[in-house]
Amino acid sequence: MAATAIVAGVGPHKGLGAVLSHRAAGEGLHVFVAGRTLEKLEAVAEAIRAEGGAATAIICDVTDEAQVIDLWNCAEETGPVALAIYNAGNNTPGKISGMTAEYFERSWRVCTYGAFLFAREASDHMAPRGEGTLLFTGASSSMRGKEGFAAFSAAKGGLRTFAQSAAKEFGPLGLHVGHVVIDGGISGEKLHTMVPQYAAQREQEGRLIDLDGIADVYIQLHRQKRSAWSFEVDIRTHAEPW
Amino acid sequence: MAATAIVAGVGPHKGLGAVLSHRAAGEGLHVFVAGRTLEKLEAVAEAIRAEGGAATAIICDVTDEAQVIDLWNCAEETGPVALAIYNAGNNTPGKISGMTAEYFERSWRVCTYGAFLFAREASDHMAPRGEGTLLFTGASSSMRGKEGFAAFSAAKGGLRTFAQSAAKEFGPLGLHVGHVVIDGGISGEKLHTMVPQYAAQREQEGRLIDLDGIADVYIQLHRQKRSAWSFEVDIRTHAEPW
Amino acid sequence: MAATAIVAGVGPHKGLGAVLSHRAAGEGLHVFVAGRTLEKLEAVAEAIRAEGGAATAIICDVTDEAQVIDLWNCAEETGPVALAIYNAGNNTPGKISGMTAEYFERSWRVCTYGAFLFAREASDHMAPRGEGTLLFTGASSSMRGKEGFAAFSAAKGGLRTFAQSAAKEFGPLGLHVGHVVIDGGISGEKLHTMVPQYAAQREQEGRLIDLDGIADVYIQLHRQKRSAWSFEVDIRTHAEPW
Amino acid sequence: MAATAIVAGVGPHKGLGAVLSHRAAGEGLHVFVAGRTLEKLEAVAEAIRAEGGAATAIICDVTDEAQVIDLWNCAEETGPVALAIYNAGNNTPGKISGMTAEYFERSWRVCTYGAFLFAREASDHMAPRGEGTLLFTGASSSMRGKEGFAAFSAAKGGLRTFAQSAAKEFGPLGLHVGHVVIDGGISGEKLHTMVPQYAAQREQEGRLIDLDGIADVYIQLHRQKRSAWSFEVDIRTHAEPW
Repeated sequence: MAATAIVAGVGPHKGLGAVLSHRAAGEGLHVFVAGRTLEKLEAVAEAIRAEGGAATAIICDVTDEAQVIDLWNCAEETGPVALAIYNAGNNTPGKISGMTAEYFERSWRVCTYGAFLFAREASDHMAPRGEGTLLFTGASSSMRGKEGFAAFSAAKGGLRTFAQSAAKEFGPLGLHVGHVVIDGGISGEKLHTMVPQYAAQREQEGRLIDLDGIADVYIQLHRQKRSAWSFEVDIRTHAEPW
Repeated sequence: MAATAIVAGVGPHKGLGAVLSHRAAGEGLHVFVAGRTLEKLEAVAEAIRAEGGAATAIICDVTDEAQVIDLWNCAEETGPVALAIYNAGNNTPGKISGMTAEYFERSWRVCTYGAFLFAREASDHMAPRGEGTLLFTGASSSMRGKEGFAAFSAAKGGLRTFAQSAAKEFGPLGLHVGHVVIDGGISGEKLHTMVPQYAAQREQEGRLIDLDGIADVYIQLHRQKRSAWSFEVDIRTHAEPW
Repeated sequence: MAATAIVAGVGPHKGLGAVLSHRAAGEGLHVFVAGRTLEKLEAVAEAIRAEGGAATAIICDVTDEAQVIDLWNCAEETGPVALAIYNAGNNTPGKISGMTAEYFERSWRVCTYGAFLFAREASDHMAPRGEGTLLFTGASSSMRGKEGFAAFSAAKGGLRTFAQSAAKEFGPLGLHVGHVVIDGGISGEKLHTMVPQYAAQREQEGRLIDLDGIADVYIQLHRQKRSAWSFEVDIRTHAEPW
Repeated sequence: MAATAIVAGVGPHKGLGAVLSHRAAGEGLHVFVAGRTLEKLEAVAEAIRAEGGAATAIICDVTDEAQVIDLWNCAEETGPVALAIYNAGNNTPGKISGMTAEYFERSWRVCTYGAFLFAREASDHMAPRGEGTLLFTGASSSMRGKEGFAAFSAAKGGLRTFAQSAAKEFGPLGLHVGHVVIDGGISGEKLHTMVPQYAAQREQEGRLIDLDGIADVYIQLHRQKRSAWSFEVDIRTHAEPW
């Protein structure tokens, strides 16, 4: 059976999840393109197949335990998962005052809870084989809580310490856990669609991080041998103040 | 009306929550001693009153939004809350592999979600007055995810970045947010009862952190003026390797 | 013999070193007020004595090994040093490009090298007694290198990791090592004299950290018992963005 | 003129500096192999030439300002430096008590002061061209001061905050600054020669980091485009407890 990859958290065609899916296919892996909107997933999978890669679109709500279990079982039926990327987790701005409990919880469910479910399945499937790569997408807020981003900071900060625990638990078993800190806006479809003026200004300032440059880091982490693993890599543009 | 304090997460008589309650009363505040077991809360409140302090036991499940709102309303009816301590959050060891989703979620609900609910109410009540202290209890796992403590690390790491966001959002409004990192076992009733051999060995090695020493830090943070606030203070024994 | 204190890095009458000296005297310690300008040191010592405290002015270039050794011997002849504060280290702004090697080295000598000399003497005198407090003054740049402050960041960052090593080496011997991170401008004589407009604006914004509030933290660290020691405490005003 | 590279801190044939030199040559750069022992440098340069690469051995004491300036001028005469790696800095264990001032200073000179000299020249030569890569070698002690490694922790901690400042100062000018944290023993000639038993045990445990794996990270950093730069990457083996 050909080895497979799972990319969870795939949205628009020109988003990070989509690019990661393409690149995973480029590694010769049959990619399971997972997200919430079948139409978008199919478009990504179709594009991969059009390039000669292997891909399957699969709907998965990463906050639903049964669906995450199914996602892993489905991929593993096709072939052993060699690379698993947890890329779910949209930014959720907002002040604490006035924030609903549902909003706060939703951020955690997508960024942290889903990552736990995903990591547990990854471990259960990969650990017996003694190999595999499990990568998480982090953000500026992973490192330091920011004003106006309390929900996202709580969720991404929790994901980071979770990923550290996972790295220490899974590492000796042969599973490579990595955490990519994307420190700034991404030059993807989402930003350009949702906040076009902001995106345009950032683009002019050279402050939108290139999708392919980000994907390079994920693939490099995947290719590392166990004798020299990286856990955390940060990424920003040359123009980003930090 | 006399100023009040809330200590959320009060357990046994000789635990950290109880000692913090006593010390808050020592600051002349009417203390709302909040936790899940009325009998324990009443014992703490009674002991405070026996020392001449003012205290009210109040049952509160910090993971229940309505109860947290009620807790704050109840305290504010007695007097403005000047000091609010979120001390809930038991350690939850366990490997990721084999961990139930409920266990992972429970850790977050108690350590992180409850802290958000508590902080939001704190802000809504205190911010209009432009003053007040809001303190969170952290742990070793707040700083770095540890092997075998993924749920706790995710929850406490998330609490820390949340507290940073809260400090930045509330600081300019006059609310002092602090995060106390307790880096090691506490010399409280819980450890001696639950893992007596471990506690005894640690005690012999001088590695159990003194409850009053911890409480000193919370009270010192509360007394700081806005012209010199501390956000984070770590605490460990002289014998702790770190 | 009465116990003594050393405060190294004392400048103007209304600076942090002077206030720390006063407060150390207030703990009943005979304070050795150490710095480079005898006139300033005498003024501080005289003021302490006028308040009924005990103080000796002593010239010490903290970057001169022999002088640091002499400073410690001199204090120890009067009485065992119970509290030693290394407060030397002026901010040194400047871009890397165009910075002289002397400038870069000078920053390290004052902030880091002197701290090593001071810590070594502290250990040699205090460790045999199994007690004592050794505190270092940190800054925003201790935590993260800042643009335009490369020399200071290198020096203060190095001091921080040095202090961590010292804390781990000396802690089991009974010596309490602490690191106080002063995150912002200090409301001291220096800032008001050197950059009066900047200081005035910051003062208006409530962004100058209060000297007594800072000194409180040092004294609190000194008073901690070994069963509950803090290593690091940060300090900023309520209005500081961070 | 062909573009060049400088690798400062090249020692034995099978050490990290040598491998980095080979890999830089593999990028099509004429490599200036810089270190203290001409014989070793010549061996590395000769091996590179034998593989068809271009290399020049050059003696440079990185703690000597004039020699660092000469090193850069020499390389720039051959061609613009596209990649500059500061790899100098041997581990310097030892307790603070009993450590000589010379030993402490030496560690800083090699790890931190030389890095400043190197970075300043890098900036002066590269910034006018608006491109270039400047990489520093870090260690476990860069992140946290360790017991028994105070000198090294002070030096490497200072290097890290310095590198952060440099990244922020040089980034907008188009220079990519990176910091590679090597968290564990390296499988190089040095360890096997100096502490053979320790090296053998670590090797058996799978805890010696692979040289080529480390070098991959440096080269990947060099290849990144300015729209997606990483500042810090950590590296350890799968078996390393951390």
